[in-house]
Amino acid sequence: MKKKSMLDLHRVSVEEYASQDKLPVVVVLDDVRSEMNVGSVFRTADAFAVERICLCGITAVPPTPEIHKTALGAEDSVVWEYFSSADEAVETLIGQGYEVCAVEQVHDSMSLEKFMFSTTKKYALVFGNEVKGVRQTVVDKCQVCIEIPQYGTKHSLNVANSVAILLWEALRQLRNG
Amino acid sequence: MKKKSMLDLHRVSVEEYASQDKLPVVVVLDDVRSEMNVGSVFRTADAFAVERICLCGITAVPPTPEIHKTALGAEDSVVWEYFSSADEAVETLIGQGYEVCAVEQVHDSMSLEKFMFSTTKKYALVFGNEVKGVRQTVVDKCQVCIEIPQYGTKHSLNVANSVAILLWEALRQLRNG
Repeated sequence: MKKKSMLDLHRVSVEEYASQDKLPVVVVLDDVRSEMNVGSVFRTADAFAVERICLCGITAVPPTPEIHKTALGAEDSVVWEYFSSADEAVETLIGQGYEVCAVEQVHDSMSLEKFMFSTTKKYALVFGNEVKGVRQTVVDKCQVCIEIPQYGTKHSLNVANSVAILLWEALRQLRNG
Repeated sequence: MKKKSMLDLHRVSVEEYASQDKLPVVVVLDDVRSEMNVGSVFRTADAFAVERICLCGITAVPPTPEIHKTALGAEDSVVWEYFSSADEAVETLIGQGYEVCAVEQVHDSMSLEKFMFSTTKKYALVFGNEVKGVRQTVVDKCQVCIEIPQYGTKHSLNVANSVAILLWEALRQLRNG
């Protein structure tokens, strides 16, 4: 099977992207330290056409050379906004009618294997700092906690990889749902 | 809901990991240039307990400081082997009875939304170079081409994020299958 050329991929322009339908999902980054992770999240968010990204606390905001290195320009297509804290972002999103889900390893979490995205809702998915995860005060404000089941020796997944998994799962369920 | 402590996570040791059941999936990296991507793949492969990783061509092999930075030690738990080319790896894996799937954007690919992992098979998933993807000669040897559907402005996803999505999808289907 022949590989597609750039033209074969039929990608949308930044202008077309702005007006096309979006996945009803907002990504919230709580104190993500690495600009490379932030850029990587932008690139995945662009591919799956999420509504927007909320960058909170110490999370860097575009434009920066490091974000650009891994976003590869997706920081120009995906809508983002900055909140001084994830607590504030979560309160705002709940007020706007989003179902706010922390993606975190907590007691009595819902496994991602069992989580069902509903086509009648809109979601905010909260991801945390590379070392500390989503802070407890933010977890406490979230309506659901989703955990990615893990079977290895390390205690967690990389945050950009966790975002990729959650966005894929949301897309898979919602586009087919 | 209270966040789990390191102890609450009940992670396995490297010795326990070696003897536990694995996901019947081998990850093949064809000329992956970035050691940070290689390390990130090790970390995800550990979390989802894949059988092994085949590092091919210019793909760096552990131990290196850069791989360690993103693998965080997962390079010590996940079994890996080196092949001088992905062509050789794919031929070997087909000979060993694996269903070998290129993860690539090709004409007449199977969308990941439709791909069904079978519990009676074992899989090798081939991922390519950051710029060039899986080379055409390797695609030609693969039995299936799986494409992650994308709706954004950029032409592809980061390779480590693509690995995370595919491994999650394999785990989701095979652990419940």
